[in-house]
Amino acid sequence: MKPVKPLALLALSLAFLAFPKNAQADDPLPSWSDGGAKQSIVDFVGKVTKSGSPDFLPPEERIATFDNDGTLWCEQPLYFQLLFALDRVKMLAPQHPEWKTKEPFASLLKGDVKSALAGGEPAIAKIVMVTHAGMTTAEFEQIVKDWIATAKHPKFKRPYTECVYQPMIELLAYLRANGFKTFIVSGGGIEFMRPWTEKVYGIPPEQVVGSSVKMKYEMRDGKPVLMRLPEVNFIDDKTGKPVGINEHIGRRPVAAFGNSDGDQQMLEWTQAGSGARLMMLVHHDDAVREFAYGAESKIGTFSDALMTEAKKNSWTVISMKDDWKTIFAFEKN
Amino acid sequence: MKPVKPLALLALSLAFLAFPKNAQADDPLPSWSDGGAKQSIVDFVGKVTKSGSPDFLPPEERIATFDNDGTLWCEQPLYFQLLFALDRVKMLAPQHPEWKTKEPFASLLKGDVKSALAGGEPAIAKIVMVTHAGMTTAEFEQIVKDWIATAKHPKFKRPYTECVYQPMIELLAYLRANGFKTFIVSGGGIEFMRPWTEKVYGIPPEQVVGSSVKMKYEMRDGKPVLMRLPEVNFIDDKTGKPVGINEHIGRRPVAAFGNSDGDQQMLEWTQAGSGARLMMLVHHDDAVREFAYGAESKIGTFSDALMTEAKKNSWTVISMKDDWKTIFAFEKN
Repeated sequence: MKPVKPLALLALSLAFLAFPKNAQADDPLPSWSDGGAKQSIVDFVGKVTKSGSPDFLPPEERIATFDNDGTLWCEQPLYFQLLFALDRVKMLAPQHPEWKTKEPFASLLKGDVKSALAGGEPAIAKIVMVTHAGMTTAEFEQIVKDWIATAKHPKFKRPYTECVYQPMIELLAYLRANGFKTFIVSGGGIEFMRPWTEKVYGIPPEQVVGSSVKMKYEMRDGKPVLMRLPEVNFIDDKTGKPVGINEHIGRRPVAAFGNSDGDQQMLEWTQAGSGARLMMLVHHDDAVREFAYGAESKIGTFSDALMTEAKKNSWTVISMKDDWKTIFAFEKN
Repeated sequence: MKPVKPLALLALSLAFLAFPKNAQADDPLPSWSDGGAKQSIVDFVGKVTKSGSPDFLPPEERIATFDNDGTLWCEQPLYFQLLFALDRVKMLAPQHPEWKTKEPFASLLKGDVKSALAGGEPAIAKIVMVTHAGMTTAEFEQIVKDWIATAKHPKFKRPYTECVYQPMIELLAYLRANGFKTFIVSGGGIEFMRPWTEKVYGIPPEQVVGSSVKMKYEMRDGKPVLMRLPEVNFIDDKTGKPVGINEHIGRRPVAAFGNSDGDQQMLEWTQAGSGARLMMLVHHDDAVREFAYGAESKIGTFSDALMTEAKKNSWTVISMKDDWKTIFAFEKN
């Protein structure tokens, strides 16, 4: 046998590396069924990243924005941040004996969530403010971290950070691998998301846009703190989304992903720029694997008017039932 | 002569590449004089980037924030944004005949800037609002781009974007080469800075934090626009700087650079984190090459109280006269 030359060995291993092991490993979106939704993603990414293409975008313009609730993670039976607030009310109750007779807290503490939320937005605002304000940003971060590490989803019996959509996790990674900067633009609280988005989605705190309360810088025992005040600073929903995008990113996205009426303006704003664009809406139509809801739902409303807009503007509607082979990574276990 | 083997040639060229051409080329901060200020930068970057060092920081935590006016670019004889507003008033005057008799515009149009600004903050606010609101964000961006491309500094007779401090440009690049993410955190308008910061400082729009007006999303001829309203949204100065940092970045900086009383809280907030930190203040003490001003100045006040804080907290004060070999790149021409 002739001795194998080192250079020949090197050439061989390079050839091996370049050779695809199997088709599955080559597909960056394995949880997406072949079909229109997947194809529109691959086509869009292909044309904006192909040098010389009329739709080519330099990397700094590859900005993609994602709603969170109902787009990246589940939002049923209630927005997870509201479930967090309800858990927090129970935890704080011993320090607030007055809540026993004061709505919406009284109903909540009796386990009657429906009556507690019957007061609508003012009731929700009261719950959010007592659970989200009056502490420093560092204290709130720790409260969120503790909850997210221990709380479990009522239906799936899994940590909330596992109730994230596997196809969207793949999409985020695929876009980033193609030079995109991925942002969250959510109606949820900016400081409720930041403690875990980097680990779960690969999205760092500075790329999270959300709703916020006002903050006050002050000295406490000679150390500076930021106090969270019981006053709304910004609501990052509906017409607020383009405003939040402009304030935080300062560039118009070229791709935007949502799932409800709250995302319409973000998609309009994205589409109104020149050049190639990708606008997609997740439609929750899989009652077996997740939840099925739409126009009639108070959480994540997908109205008939939004469906009309989607058709008129050629936005891609993703059917969770048909377009997603896998919804949650834990399904496979 | 023996033929030179290709591999030997390759080895030779690699050795050549690795060999420093001269000491100057190796110094990432050539406009900084050797001394305490430069040394404190190099020491800090060395210890936080050295793997295994007790001060090592993973790249995602290498956040550095820079004030703009007086820290990255000049701020005399007036904040450049105010000079922009004054130019803009002159340009808009034909559409506003009432300004001829209405202060602060009447004085301004007579060329009497001092009297116009004698009304203090309310007068300045009036000037800023008529020049910065009532148009879309896209229109404002174009107005800023046109001005920055044509206007010249009254003393240096150069475009404003050349009136930037060469040592700070080198510092920004040096930090980024060491894995830092560099942000502007300025009292200046966020949309006044974004049209040019990427080109001039290498800082993209999404890494610019500044003051802002309220915005309204609306449809105009079937196209969505963001209207700039004549109402303050956020003032990114003094105690506002840590608030702005928290809202936009969501992480505490490990290095912060300023030059005036407006930066004190940003430096305090930066220092209050655990681990190695770098806090620096530019001191304008070079009347020959730039301007000399400090406690007595209305623009960029560096009060005695700030100097006391700097000493107490071991913040490094940069003497423009002694620590900077070159202030502006155009000096060399």
